Amino acid sequence: MAVTVFRLSHRPCRDRRISTHCGLVARAFGAERILYSGTRDTQMEMSVRNVVKQWGGPFTVEYRKDWKAAIRDFRGKVAHLTMYGIPLRKRINRIRQHSSIMVVIGGGKVPPDAYKLADWNISVTSQPHSEVAALAVFLHEYFQGKEVAKRFRKARKAVIPQERGKKVV
Amino acid sequence: MAVTVFRLSHRPCRDRRISTHCGLVARAFGAERILYSGTRDTQMEMSVRNVVKQWGGPFTVEYRKDWKAAIRDFRGKVAHLTMYGIPLRKRINRIRQHSSIMVVIGGGKVPPDAYKLADWNISVTSQPHSEVAALAVFLHEYFQGKEVAKRFRKARKAVIPQERGKKVV
Repeated sequence: MAVTVFRLSHRPCRDRRISTHCGLVARAFGAERILYSGTRDTQMEMSVRNVVKQWGGPFTVEYRKDWKAAIRDFRGKVAHLTMYGIPLRKRINRIRQHSSIMVVIGGGKVPPDAYKLADWNISVTSQPHSEVAALAVFLHEYFQGKEVAKRFRKARKAVIPQERGKKVV
Repeated sequence: MAVTVFRLSHRPCRDRRISTHCGLVARAFGAERILYSGTRDTQMEMSVRNVVKQWGGPFTVEYRKDWKAAIRDFRGKVAHLTMYGIPLRKRINRIRQHSSIMVVIGGGKVPPDAYKLADWNISVTSQPHSEVAALAVFLHEYFQGKEVAKRFRKARKAVIPQERGKKVV
């Protein structure tokens, strides 16, 4: 299963930490890459790549100027996460049948075309909260929790789980 | 089941959006309140309260100057979310037996005492990602996905899920 995450309309000042969290969540929860549109932000890209360097991959972060083209040209199905969509639980079995998917997450105001270009508009609760959380829960359901055991290649660091304290090798 | 979330060491400038997301995720995924320590931030509190006003509750946000006392005095069990802890899947059944829990999430550097004061140190993947995501997946597992159907009281707005577009009543 290959998952691409697409973060729409990134604004470097306002969204840097949130978009970085989106990138790290995409990686930790089993996606292969994150694309983003809006304003290019090499600092955000660096933050994500530094984690890949330390904790392993493969995982890439790439900028796309034309978000519509990126969605349209994607070879696979597209799930747009929005609080206005159909509840995740009602669609996840159907979505899981597709092994190549793009998960689109918005920033502030999402252009109406995003709803039209997507194969599914999916809500992770119908309440306002966070694209970071929506992405994590979506991937957690898509991979059925198996993503937590994912092995990362070329990792310089890895955690040995502890009852108390920290152990890194 | 009553869940309190505790956000440690909030810094208004750096963490405002992330902490706001933590508050909204806590509410949307079934917690009753979020406490936070660090620097008091009425703007962040307002952002969360505005969502409660519009989308319903009950949900509160409260500042605690003394985080250790707040954890120590809590009547119930305390789960601290950290990438260094024991994997969620290995402990969630045990945690779910307790109906009053506090979920502690850190900001930047978490003081060693947080690990000691907690009944459990729990990892939501052993990879670096996001406290927002960790909180969402933890609550999603704790409530076994039932939180997505939660009804909010005194809501002025609610979403009617749609295949395309937005419908709010």
